[in-house]
Amino acid sequence: MDYYSSQITKLIEELSKLPGVGSKSAQRLAFHIINMPQEQVSHLADAITSAKANIRYCKECFTLTDQEVCPICSSNKRDHKIIMVVENTRDLAAYEKTGKYEGIYHVLHGAISPMLGIGPGDIRLKELMQRLQGEVDEVIIATNSSLEGETTAMYISKLVKPTGIRVSRIASGVPVGGDLEYIDEVTLLRALEGRVEL
Amino acid sequence: MDYYSSQITKLIEELSKLPGVGSKSAQRLAFHIINMPQEQVSHLADAITSAKANIRYCKECFTLTDQEVCPICSSNKRDHKIIMVVENTRDLAAYEKTGKYEGIYHVLHGAISPMLGIGPGDIRLKELMQRLQGEVDEVIIATNSSLEGETTAMYISKLVKPTGIRVSRIASGVPVGGDLEYIDEVTLLRALEGRVEL
Repeated sequence: MDYYSSQITKLIEELSKLPGVGSKSAQRLAFHIINMPQEQVSHLADAITSAKANIRYCKECFTLTDQEVCPICSSNKRDHKIIMVVENTRDLAAYEKTGKYEGIYHVLHGAISPMLGIGPGDIRLKELMQRLQGEVDEVIIATNSSLEGETTAMYISKLVKPTGIRVSRIASGVPVGGDLEYIDEVTLLRALEGRVEL
Repeated sequence: MDYYSSQITKLIEELSKLPGVGSKSAQRLAFHIINMPQEQVSHLADAITSAKANIRYCKECFTLTDQEVCPICSSNKRDHKIIMVVENTRDLAAYEKTGKYEGIYHVLHGAISPMLGIGPGDIRLKELMQRLQGEVDEVIIATNSSLEGETTAMYISKLVKPTGIRVSRIASGVPVGGDLEYIDEVTLLRALEGRVEL
Protein backbone atom coordinates (compact mmCIF):
# COMPACT_ATOMS: atom_id res chain seq x y z
CA MET A 1 0.00 0.00 0.00
CA ASP A 2 2.71 2.49 -0.98
CA TYR A 3 0.10 4.91 -2.33
CA TYR A 4 -0.45 5.99 1.26
CA SER A 5 2.32 7.50 3.29
CA SER A 6 4.05 5.03 5.58
CA GLN A 7 2.45 6.55 8.69
CA ILE A 8 -1.05 6.02 7.31
CA THR A 9 -0.20 2.50 6.14
CA LYS A 10 1.14 1.67 9.60
CA LEU A 11 -2.01 2.97 11.27
CA ILE A 12 -4.23 1.03 8.86
CA GLU A 13 -2.21 -2.12 9.57
CA GLU A 14 -2.51 -1.76 13.33
CA LEU A 15 -6.23 -1.03 13.16
CA SER A 16 -6.94 -3.99 10.91
CA LYS A 17 -5.50 -6.33 13.56
CA LEU A 18 -8.52 -5.53 15.75
CA PRO A 19 -11.41 -8.01 15.74
CA GLY A 20 -14.15 -7.24 13.24
CA VAL A 21 -12.09 -4.56 11.52
CA GLY A 22 -11.39 -5.44 7.88
CA SER A 23 -9.05 -3.53 5.59
CA LYS A 24 -11.81 -1.21 4.34
CA SER A 25 -13.00 -0.26 7.82
CA ALA A 26 -9.39 0.11 8.95
CA GLN A 27 -8.90 2.66 6.15
CA ARG A 28 -12.07 4.48 7.09
CA LEU A 29 -11.07 4.55 10.77
CA ALA A 30 -7.52 5.69 9.95
CA PHE A 31 -8.68 8.68 7.91
CA HIS A 32 -11.24 9.51 10.54
CA ILE A 33 -8.54 9.49 13.22
CA ILE A 34 -6.25 11.68 11.11
CA ASN A 35 -9.06 14.19 10.70
CA MET A 36 -10.06 14.19 14.38
CA PRO A 37 -9.01 17.16 16.54
CA GLN A 38 -5.58 16.67 18.13
CA GLU A 39 -7.11 16.61 21.61
CA GLN A 40 -9.48 13.76 20.80
CA VAL A 41 -6.67 11.74 19.23
CA SER A 42 -4.63 12.11 22.42
CA HIS A 43 -7.63 11.03 24.48
CA LEU A 44 -8.01 7.90 22.37
CA ALA A 45 -4.31 6.98 22.46
CA ASP A 46 -4.11 7.67 26.20
CA ALA A 47 -7.24 5.63 26.92
CA ILE A 48 -5.70 2.67 25.08
CA THR A 49 -2.32 2.93 26.80
CA SER A 50 -3.69 3.56 30.26
CA ALA A 51 -6.40 0.88 30.14
CA LYS A 52 -3.75 -1.66 29.20
CA ALA A 53 -1.34 -0.38 31.85
CA ASN A 54 -3.80 -0.20 34.76
CA ILE A 55 -6.23 -3.02 34.25
CA ARG A 56 -5.69 -6.22 36.18
CA TYR A 57 -7.75 -9.09 37.56
CA CYS A 58 -9.74 -8.60 40.76
CA LYS A 59 -8.04 -10.91 43.24
CA GLU A 60 -11.44 -12.16 44.46
CA CYS A 61 -13.59 -12.69 41.37
CA PHE A 62 -11.02 -12.20 38.55
CA THR A 63 -13.04 -9.62 36.67
CA LEU A 64 -11.01 -6.93 34.91
CA THR A 65 -10.65 -3.88 37.13
CA ASP A 66 -8.22 -1.11 38.02
CA GLN A 67 -8.25 -1.87 41.74
CA GLU A 68 -6.89 -4.80 43.72
CA VAL A 69 -10.46 -5.82 44.58
CA CYS A 70 -13.26 -4.77 42.21
CA PRO A 71 -16.11 -2.48 43.37
CA ILE A 72 -18.58 -5.39 43.42
CA CYS A 73 -16.41 -7.67 45.58
CA SER A 74 -15.58 -4.82 47.96
CA SER A 75 -19.19 -3.68 48.34
CA ASN A 76 -20.98 -4.59 51.58
CA LYS A 77 -24.34 -4.07 49.90
CA ARG A 78 -23.89 -7.27 47.91
CA ASP A 79 -24.68 -10.77 49.15
CA HIS A 80 -21.28 -12.45 49.28
CA LYS A 81 -22.86 -15.87 49.82
CA ILE A 82 -24.21 -16.06 46.28
CA ILE A 83 -21.68 -16.40 43.47
CA MET A 84 -22.67 -16.14 39.82
CA VAL A 85 -20.16 -17.82 37.49
CA VAL A 86 -19.74 -16.07 34.11
CA GLU A 87 -17.41 -16.60 31.17
CA ASN A 88 -16.07 -13.05 30.94
CA THR A 89 -16.34 -9.47 32.20
CA ARG A 90 -18.79 -8.50 29.44
CA ASP A 91 -21.22 -11.16 30.67
CA LEU A 92 -20.81 -9.81 34.19
CA ALA A 93 -21.64 -6.33 32.85
CA ALA A 94 -24.71 -7.71 31.07
CA TYR A 95 -26.10 -8.99 34.40
CA GLU A 96 -25.09 -5.81 36.22
CA LYS A 97 -27.12 -3.80 33.73
CA THR A 98 -30.27 -5.56 34.93
CA GLY A 99 -29.64 -3.88 38.29
CA LYS A 100 -31.44 -6.71 40.09
CA TYR A 101 -28.72 -9.19 40.91
CA GLU A 102 -27.53 -8.76 44.50
CA GLY A 103 -24.86 -11.43 44.71
CA ILE A 104 -21.23 -11.39 43.60
CA TYR A 105 -19.48 -12.98 40.62
CA HIS A 106 -16.73 -15.31 39.52
CA VAL A 107 -15.23 -14.69 36.08
CA LEU A 108 -13.80 -17.81 34.40
CA HIS A 109 -12.18 -16.04 31.43
CA GLY A 110 -13.24 -18.69 28.97
CA ALA A 111 -15.15 -21.94 28.77
CA ILE A 112 -14.08 -25.56 28.45
CA SER A 113 -13.69 -26.41 24.76
CA PRO A 114 -12.12 -29.70 23.70
CA MET A 115 -12.32 -28.44 20.09
CA LEU A 116 -10.08 -25.46 20.88
CA GLY A 117 -7.98 -27.45 23.35
CA ILE A 118 -9.21 -25.40 26.33
CA GLY A 119 -9.40 -27.66 29.37
CA PRO A 120 -10.60 -27.10 32.94
CA GLY A 121 -7.07 -26.02 33.89
CA ASP A 122 -7.09 -23.17 31.39
CA ILE A 123 -9.96 -21.22 32.98
CA ARG A 124 -10.32 -19.87 36.54
CA LEU A 125 -11.91 -23.03 37.97
CA LYS A 126 -9.36 -23.81 40.64
CA GLU A 127 -9.84 -20.28 41.96
CA LEU A 128 -13.62 -20.82 42.08
CA MET A 129 -13.21 -24.00 44.14
CA GLN A 130 -10.94 -22.12 46.55
CA ARG A 131 -13.60 -19.45 47.05
CA LEU A 132 -16.18 -22.13 47.88
CA GLN A 133 -14.21 -23.02 50.98
CA GLY A 134 -15.53 -19.78 52.46
CA GLU A 135 -19.15 -19.16 53.43
CA VAL A 136 -21.14 -19.73 50.24
CA ASP A 137 -24.84 -20.63 49.94
CA GLU A 138 -25.32 -20.88 46.20
CA VAL A 139 -23.38 -21.02 42.94
CA ILE A 140 -25.39 -19.77 39.94
CA ILE A 141 -23.86 -20.93 36.68
CA ALA A 142 -24.40 -18.30 33.99
CA THR A 143 -22.07 -19.52 31.27
CA ASN A 144 -23.38 -19.14 27.71
CA SER A 145 -25.84 -21.71 26.42
CA SER A 146 -23.37 -22.74 23.70
CA LEU A 147 -21.79 -26.18 23.58
CA GLU A 148 -18.77 -24.87 25.47
CA GLY A 149 -20.89 -23.03 28.01
CA GLU A 150 -23.03 -26.10 28.67
CA THR A 151 -19.99 -28.35 29.00
CA THR A 152 -18.48 -25.91 31.47
CA ALA A 153 -21.74 -25.73 33.43
CA MET A 154 -21.93 -29.55 33.70
CA TYR A 155 -18.31 -29.73 34.78
CA ILE A 156 -18.75 -27.08 37.48
CA SER A 157 -21.95 -28.62 38.83
CA LYS A 158 -20.18 -31.98 39.22
CA LEU A 159 -17.35 -30.28 41.10
CA VAL A 160 -19.58 -28.22 43.37
CA LYS A 161 -22.30 -30.74 44.28
CA PRO A 162 -20.12 -32.86 46.62
CA THR A 163 -19.45 -29.72 48.72
CA GLY A 164 -23.15 -29.52 49.57
CA ILE A 165 -23.44 -25.97 48.21
CA ARG A 166 -26.54 -25.34 46.10
CA VAL A 167 -25.77 -25.16 42.37
CA SER A 168 -28.17 -23.64 39.85
CA ARG A 169 -28.12 -22.85 36.15
CA ILE A 170 -29.81 -19.80 34.58
CA ALA A 171 -32.92 -20.84 32.64
CA SER A 172 -32.69 -21.15 28.89
CA GLY A 173 -35.69 -20.59 26.67
CA VAL A 174 -37.31 -18.13 24.34
CA PRO A 175 -35.92 -14.60 24.86
CA VAL A 176 -38.43 -12.03 26.05
CA GLY A 177 -39.88 -10.22 23.04
CA GLY A 178 -38.52 -12.94 20.75
CA ASP A 179 -40.54 -14.14 17.79
CA LEU A 180 -41.05 -17.92 17.92
CA GLU A 181 -40.57 -18.45 14.19
CA TYR A 182 -37.03 -17.05 14.26
CA ILE A 183 -35.85 -19.14 17.18
CA ASP A 184 -33.86 -22.34 16.63
CA GLU A 185 -35.31 -25.76 17.42
CA VAL A 186 -32.95 -26.49 20.29
CA THR A 187 -34.04 -23.35 22.11
CA LEU A 188 -37.70 -24.10 21.42
CA LEU A 189 -37.33 -27.59 22.85
CA ARG A 190 -35.44 -26.26 25.86
CA ALA A 191 -38.23 -23.74 26.45
CA LEU A 192 -40.81 -26.55 26.26
CA GLU A 193 -38.91 -28.78 28.68
CA GLY A 194 -38.46 -25.93 31.12
CA ARG A 195 -42.11 -24.85 31.06
CA VAL A 196 -43.51 -23.63 34.35
CA GLU A 197 -47.03 -24.07 35.63
CA LEU A 198 -49.18 -20.95 35.62
CA MET B 1 -21.47 2.01 33.23
CA ASP B 2 -20.06 1.77 36.75
CA TYR B 3 -19.93 -2.03 36.53
CA TYR B 4 -16.71 -1.62 34.57
CA SER B 5 -13.70 0.10 36.08
CA SER B 6 -13.32 3.74 35.07
CA GLN B 7 -10.36 2.96 32.80
CA ILE B 8 -12.37 0.43 30.81
CA THR B 9 -15.36 2.76 30.64
CA LYS B 10 -13.14 5.56 29.36
CA LEU B 11 -11.65 3.32 26.68
CA ILE B 12 -15.11 2.11 25.60
CA GLU B 13 -16.28 5.73 25.42
CA GLU B 14 -13.35 6.82 23.26
CA LEU B 15 -13.70 3.82 20.93
CA SER B 16 -17.44 4.32 20.48
CA LYS B 17 -16.76 7.82 19.11
CA LEU B 18 -15.20 6.20 16.04
CA PRO B 19 -17.39 5.88 12.95
CA GLY B 20 -19.20 2.57 12.65
CA VAL B 21 -18.32 1.52 16.18
CA GLY B 22 -21.42 1.06 18.32
CA SER B 23 -21.41 0.49 22.07
CA LYS B 24 -21.30 -3.32 21.70
CA SER B 25 -18.35 -3.29 19.30
CA ALA B 26 -16.59 -0.70 21.45
CA GLN B 27 -16.87 -3.11 24.39
CA ARG B 28 -15.58 -5.97 22.29
CA LEU B 29 -12.66 -3.86 21.01
CA ALA B 30 -11.85 -2.57 24.50
CA PHE B 31 -11.58 -6.05 26.00
CA HIS B 32 -9.59 -7.22 23.01
CA ILE B 33 -7.14 -4.34 23.48
CA ILE B 34 -6.81 -5.05 27.21
CA ASN B 35 -5.98 -8.66 26.40
CA MET B 36 -3.49 -7.85 23.63
CA PRO B 37 0.25 -8.16 24.39
CA GLN B 38 1.72 -4.93 25.79
CA GLU B 39 3.92 -4.50 22.73
CA GLN B 40 1.01 -4.61 20.31
CA VAL B 41 -0.94 -2.10 22.41
CA SER B 42 2.01 0.30 22.26
CA HIS B 43 2.24 -0.15 18.50
CA LEU B 44 -1.44 0.73 18.13
CA ALA B 45 -1.29 3.79 20.40
CA ASP B 46 1.93 4.99 18.74
CA ALA B 47 0.51 4.52 15.25
CA ILE B 48 -2.50 6.66 16.20
CA THR B 49 -0.44 9.41 17.80
CA SER B 50 2.22 9.52 15.14
CA ALA B 51 -0.14 9.37 12.17
CA LYS B 52 -2.00 12.36 13.60
CA ALA B 53 1.23 14.21 14.40
CA ASN B 54 2.99 13.65 11.09
CA ILE B 55 0.30 13.65 8.45
CA ARG B 56 -0.28 16.84 6.50
CA TYR B 57 -1.55 17.87 3.09
CA CYS B 58 0.73 17.54 0.06
CA LYS B 59 1.33 21.14 -1.01
CA GLU B 60 0.75 20.18 -4.65
CA CYS B 61 -2.26 17.85 -4.73
CA PHE B 62 -3.48 18.09 -1.11
CA THR B 63 -3.55 14.37 -0.49
CA LEU B 64 -2.68 13.27 3.05
CA THR B 65 1.01 12.48 3.29
CA ASP B 66 3.93 12.69 5.69
CA GLN B 67 6.14 14.66 3.31
CA GLU B 68 5.90 18.20 2.03
CA VAL B 69 5.21 16.87 -1.46
CA CYS B 70 3.65 13.41 -1.74
CA PRO B 71 5.46 10.53 -3.52
CA ILE B 72 3.13 10.77 -6.53
CA CYS B 73 3.60 14.52 -7.08
CA SER B 74 7.36 14.24 -6.63
CA SER B 75 7.70 11.27 -9.01
CA ASN B 76 9.13 11.97 -12.47
CA LYS B 77 7.60 8.75 -13.75
CA ARG B 78 4.14 10.27 -13.61
CA ASP B 79 2.59 12.46 -16.29
CA HIS B 80 2.21 15.82 -14.58
CA LYS B 81 0.06 17.16 -17.42
CA ILE B 82 -2.89 14.94 -16.51
CA ILE B 83 -4.65 15.70 -13.25
CA MET B 84 -7.32 13.41 -11.82
CA VAL B 85 -9.64 15.18 -9.40
CA VAL B 86 -10.88 13.00 -6.53
CA GLU B 87 -12.94 13.67 -3.43
CA ASN B 88 -10.52 12.22 -0.89
CA THR B 89 -7.29 10.31 -0.32
CA ARG B 90 -9.11 6.96 -0.15
CA ASP B 91 -10.43 7.52 -3.67
CA LEU B 92 -6.89 8.37 -4.79
CA ALA B 93 -5.74 5.11 -3.23
CA ALA B 94 -8.52 3.22 -5.01
CA TYR B 95 -7.19 4.44 -8.39
CA GLU B 96 -3.58 3.86 -7.40
CA LYS B 97 -4.47 0.24 -6.67
CA THR B 98 -5.31 -0.28 -10.34
CA GLY B 99 -1.63 0.47 -11.05
CA LYS B 100 -2.53 1.78 -14.52
CA TYR B 101 -3.08 5.47 -14.02
CA GLU B 102 0.03 7.45 -14.99
CA GLY B 103 -1.09 10.99 -14.24
CA ILE B 104 -1.21 12.88 -10.98
CA TYR B 105 -4.09 13.84 -8.69
CA HIS B 106 -5.90 16.67 -7.05
CA VAL B 107 -7.72 15.89 -3.79
CA LEU B 108 -10.73 18.11 -3.10
CA HIS B 109 -11.44 16.86 0.42
CA GLY B 110 -15.15 16.83 -0.08
CA ALA B 111 -17.80 17.54 -2.68
CA ILE B 112 -20.23 20.38 -3.20
CA SER B 113 -23.39 19.67 -1.21
CA PRO B 114 -26.07 22.33 -0.83
CA MET B 115 -27.84 19.91 1.54
CA LEU B 116 -24.90 19.85 3.95
CA GLY B 117 -24.05 23.48 3.30
CA ILE B 118 -20.76 22.62 1.58
CA GLY B 119 -20.08 25.17 -1.15
CA PRO B 120 -17.32 25.46 -3.78
CA GLY B 121 -15.29 27.53 -1.30
CA ASP B 122 -15.23 24.68 1.23
CA ILE B 123 -13.32 22.21 -0.92
CA ARG B 124 -9.90 22.55 -2.59
CA LEU B 125 -11.24 24.06 -5.83
CA LYS B 126 -9.34 27.36 -5.77
CA GLU B 127 -6.13 25.35 -5.41
CA LEU B 128 -7.11 23.23 -8.44
CA MET B 129 -7.63 26.36 -10.57
CA GLN B 130 -4.23 27.64 -9.48
CA ARG B 131 -2.61 24.40 -10.59
CA LEU B 132 -4.24 24.72 -14.01
CA GLN B 133 -2.18 27.84 -14.67
CA GLY B 134 0.78 25.50 -15.12
CA GLU B 135 1.23 23.13 -18.06
CA VAL B 136 -1.84 20.88 -17.97
CA ASP B 137 -3.34 18.91 -20.86
CA GLU B 138 -6.30 17.23 -19.21
CA VAL B 139 -8.39 17.28 -16.08
CA ILE B 140 -10.11 13.95 -15.35
CA ILE B 141 -12.97 14.36 -12.93
CA ALA B 142 -13.28 11.26 -10.74
CA THR B 143 -15.64 12.44 -8.06
CA ASN B 144 -18.19 9.89 -6.86
CA SER B 145 -21.27 9.32 -8.98
CA SER B 146 -23.46 10.49 -6.13
CA LEU B 147 -25.55 13.65 -6.35
CA GLU B 148 -22.77 15.65 -4.67
CA GLY B 149 -20.08 14.12 -6.85
CA GLU B 150 -22.00 14.87 -10.05
CA THR B 151 -22.72 18.44 -8.94
CA THR B 152 -19.04 18.93 -8.21
CA ALA B 153 -18.09 17.45 -11.59
CA MET B 154 -20.44 19.83 -13.43
CA TYR B 155 -19.14 22.78 -11.46
CA ILE B 156 -15.51 21.93 -12.18
CA SER B 157 -16.13 21.35 -15.88
CA LYS B 158 -17.73 24.78 -16.16
CA LEU B 159 -14.75 26.35 -14.45
CA VAL B 160 -12.14 24.51 -16.49
CA LYS B 161 -13.65 24.66 -19.98
CA PRO B 162 -12.94 28.40 -20.53
CA THR B 163 -9.22 27.70 -19.93
CA GLY B 164 -9.14 25.48 -23.04
CA ILE B 165 -7.84 22.50 -21.06
CA ARG B 166 -9.54 19.20 -21.91
CA VAL B 167 -12.00 18.09 -19.20
CA SER B 168 -13.24 14.53 -18.93
CA ARG B 169 -15.37 12.58 -16.52
CA ILE B 170 -14.80 8.93 -15.65
CA ALA B 171 -17.36 6.79 -17.44
CA SER B 172 -20.45 5.67 -15.65
CA GLY B 173 -19.18 2.12 -15.56
CA VAL B 174 -19.12 3.08 -11.93
CA PRO B 175 -22.56 2.16 -10.55
CA VAL B 176 -24.75 5.15 -9.76
CA GLY B 177 -24.76 5.87 -6.07
CA GLY B 178 -21.56 3.86 -5.64
CA ASP B 179 -18.67 4.98 -3.49
CA LEU B 180 -15.33 4.80 -5.39
CA GLU B 181 -13.37 3.16 -2.63
CA TYR B 182 -15.64 0.10 -2.57
CA ILE B 183 -15.48 -0.62 -6.28
CA ASP B 184 -13.30 -3.31 -7.79
CA GLU B 185 -10.24 -2.41 -9.86
CA VAL B 186 -11.63 -3.75 -13.15
CA THR B 187 -14.67 -1.50 -12.96
CA LEU B 188 -12.49 1.44 -12.02
CA LEU B 189 -10.24 0.79 -15.04
CA ARG B 190 -13.22 0.38 -17.38
CA ALA B 191 -14.50 3.71 -16.15
CA LEU B 192 -11.12 5.34 -16.79
CA GLU B 193 -10.78 3.92 -20.32
CA GLY B 194 -14.34 4.91 -21.20
CA ARG B 195 -14.01 8.49 -20.00
CA VAL B 196 -15.88 10.99 -22.17
CA GLU B 197 -15.04 14.58 -22.93
CA LEU B 198 -17.32 17.13 -21.28
